[in-house]
Amino acid sequence: MVHTVSRKVPLVDLGDGTALLTDRYELTMLQAALRSGTADRRAVFEVFARSLPAGRRYGVVAGTGRLLDAIEAFRFGRAELEYLTANGIVDEPTAQWLENYRFSGHVWGYSEGDCYFPESPILVVEGTFAEAVLLETIALSILNHDCAVASAASRMAQAAQDRPLIEMGSRRTHEHAAVASARAAYIAGFATTSNLEAGRRYGVPTAGTSAHSFTLLHDSERHAFEAQLASLGESTTLLVDTYDVERAVRTAVELAGPSLGAVRIDSGDLGVMARSVRDQLDSLGAHDTRIVVTGDLDEYGIAALAAAPVNGYGVGTSLVTGSGAPTASLVYKLVARSDTPSAPMRPVAKRSPGKPSRGGRKAAVRRIDGRGTAYAEMVTTGEPAPGPNDRVLLAPLVRDGEVVGREPLQAARERHAASIAELPPTALQLSKGEPAVPTEFIDGGPRH
Amino acid sequence: MVHTVSRKVPLVDLGDGTALLTDRYELTMLQAALRSGTADRRAVFEVFARSLPAGRRYGVVAGTGRLLDAIEAFRFGRAELEYLTANGIVDEPTAQWLENYRFSGHVWGYSEGDCYFPESPILVVEGTFAEAVLLETIALSILNHDCAVASAASRMAQAAQDRPLIEMGSRRTHEHAAVASARAAYIAGFATTSNLEAGRRYGVPTAGTSAHSFTLLHDSERHAFEAQLASLGESTTLLVDTYDVERAVRTAVELAGPSLGAVRIDSGDLGVMARSVRDQLDSLGAHDTRIVVTGDLDEYGIAALAAAPVNGYGVGTSLVTGSGAPTASLVYKLVARSDTPSAPMRPVAKRSPGKPSRGGRKAAVRRIDGRGTAYAEMVTTGEPAPGPNDRVLLAPLVRDGEVVGREPLQAARERHAASIAELPPTALQLSKGEPAVPTEFIDGGPRH
Repeated sequence: MVHTVSRKVPLVDLGDGTALLTDRYELTMLQAALRSGTADRRAVFEVFARSLPAGRRYGVVAGTGRLLDAIEAFRFGRAELEYLTANGIVDEPTAQWLENYRFSGHVWGYSEGDCYFPESPILVVEGTFAEAVLLETIALSILNHDCAVASAASRMAQAAQDRPLIEMGSRRTHEHAAVASARAAYIAGFATTSNLEAGRRYGVPTAGTSAHSFTLLHDSERHAFEAQLASLGESTTLLVDTYDVERAVRTAVELAGPSLGAVRIDSGDLGVMARSVRDQLDSLGAHDTRIVVTGDLDEYGIAALAAAPVNGYGVGTSLVTGSGAPTASLVYKLVARSDTPSAPMRPVAKRSPGKPSRGGRKAAVRRIDGRGTAYAEMVTTGEPAPGPNDRVLLAPLVRDGEVVGREPLQAARERHAASIAELPPTALQLSKGEPAVPTEFIDGGPRH
Repeated sequence: MVHTVSRKVPLVDLGDGTALLTDRYELTMLQAALRSGTADRRAVFEVFARSLPAGRRYGVVAGTGRLLDAIEAFRFGRAELEYLTANGIVDEPTAQWLENYRFSGHVWGYSEGDCYFPESPILVVEGTFAEAVLLETIALSILNHDCAVASAASRMAQAAQDRPLIEMGSRRTHEHAAVASARAAYIAGFATTSNLEAGRRYGVPTAGTSAHSFTLLHDSERHAFEAQLASLGESTTLLVDTYDVERAVRTAVELAGPSLGAVRIDSGDLGVMARSVRDQLDSLGAHDTRIVVTGDLDEYGIAALAAAPVNGYGVGTSLVTGSGAPTASLVYKLVARSDTPSAPMRPVAKRSPGKPSRGGRKAAVRRIDGRGTAYAEMVTTGEPAPGPNDRVLLAPLVRDGEVVGREPLQAARERHAASIAELPPTALQLSKGEPAVPTEFIDGGPRH
């Protein structure tokens, strides 16, 4: 099919556009709705999880900042439109509509870093059906990934208490998911990441010194340590388990002196190793040399090392794979729509067995008692009427198509710490259990 | 730190460069090796899995084509170098070295789509230590992700037998991991994907018609079906479980006639539903209307529907999360190096408890018996000496820095089908078990 119709605006090539990071059915629905005259009906979509991953006590909102960038970049340029028309995915009128597409509606969301619970409406998108349905796939991709990683990271950070965590999972996940994972982990309390692009793009602090290959490259472990110390200084972290840990620690302190920054242990029984290395370091006078442990750690492994003389943890695989829950199971559901572009909204819901949806646009309030502890997640189709300590949870992110909710990453990180501090103590148990804050649904009648 | 040293070549901005999709320690090792004089030692790194995910019978190589693109794009431009120097990650001599970096070594690999087993050396990288160590993170990110998805996809394709599989997991994973997942699934036997960018970038066929929101948008299910049929034609797939399946199927055939392409069921007991919908379609004369089922399917769910009248499966979450194994646990290990740039290579290995590596550069041969069935994965540090039916498994991918192993995606898809056909029948069991082909390690002495 040749694409010859003249265009109102000059087509541009969008190098990093996000519009095709989308399921085909969003565009076939658009085309059918344009034809049936329903595309301009007003619509409200909500993003929520029907449940948390099995046994989890809370979820963590992450990805909001990335989603706002993706919405701004969601434009159909020349390459996108040529692909779509040449392959018969959309017809010419739909291609013309897409050419001028720019989201012009509103988005509200739980603020990034906040906790969420089952049925929490963490994102609310309002616009015409046509413009809002197109954002379904990208919104879910970003939030499902980033929330899954942040939710796992938060448990690890709680387990680590005040010991710093290094995110080092880049090699175990897709190369761009790695960057988003580092960002999500930082929000949830990790101190640093190994990922350089996360450093450049998001300002996440980076860390890293050397791998076993560096030791193997040199004629001896001593030569390797000398080379690293000469380049990175005494405050570096030397990896001591390539051959024999005891000998390596002796060599390390001999070369660097007691001001050696840290040693890293990546194998063996980490608790046992940490104790013997601590004793050895102390006996050599290296009282301030820290011990960093890495190697298949997850939140349980971290917690098991609480009594060991460990000064920091590196976490890879379990972090980037959500520690058993690699996706947050968030869905994007139409909950209200109008009969005409100017008519009032009314609730809609499907009745699929096992997957019903609850119609009507929601508000959400975290109910907080007099001691500052959350005791309920109130989700309502009515007016929320928050009490004096309660927190209204939806904040404006996009208004009339303009992003209004952008904030520094540090704000999300601080918000997460505050949101965690507000949860009841049961939230921080690693064992499987019910959500730490129950969701109370109040049907308040239509508020559209 | 201000970056003022004059440069030999003009710096460029690399919009989609891959060089910072890298762990910081690759660059700190580079800096230390440049300083210690070991950076130019020749080195061989190998990528392999110590084991397959628990119970899996085989793994599938995927990501090779993406890795070749990433190696070509692995250049340090202005933005990358400014970030690295301004943040004290590398010193000025290292930045100057990086500015001229272009991988000039050799890469061999198992061909994309082929199967692999524990210790299979699926990628071999030879170059100076400096140039080869820099590729560690990006190589592992791409291969760990894509192999994990392809390995899960292959099991699903075997379970589905000759029924087509639609990949529809984009919304459950990172937005760019989604594109790579669609590509990996196609290699492993999926017929189509919902992901439009995978269609544009890699030519994977795309599919998709409508979601529940499209039905809810309209005044009635009848109106929605009319709209979809008007736009997409009778061959479309109508989603029939928004309200009442039996009524929806009746309406669908009433509107489209017996040439309706397909109906999709996304909830409930899919086997029971498929049988009753088949009966109803047949009773309405719609004998050729297909039934597509979706909704939390994995390879076990697909296999359980083998006797149900189902014509196609849509798979989302379990595909993009590797069906319980979201990463392939591949590692990138230095196995040989020289003492000087011109000296012969010699094997090196670490001795970390539980994670030892096997020194020496490997060759690999799949041993095939007279009936065309694989019976051993021979991995050797010696000369392989393949028998008449055996397959030598490492093919050249990069020679002197030039990509020589690029091929159409279809070639990888066809290779996978052939590689699966060669495995013993036990490979196709979904139950947990040992690798279908045992790895035999033969120490053949140095062949460097």
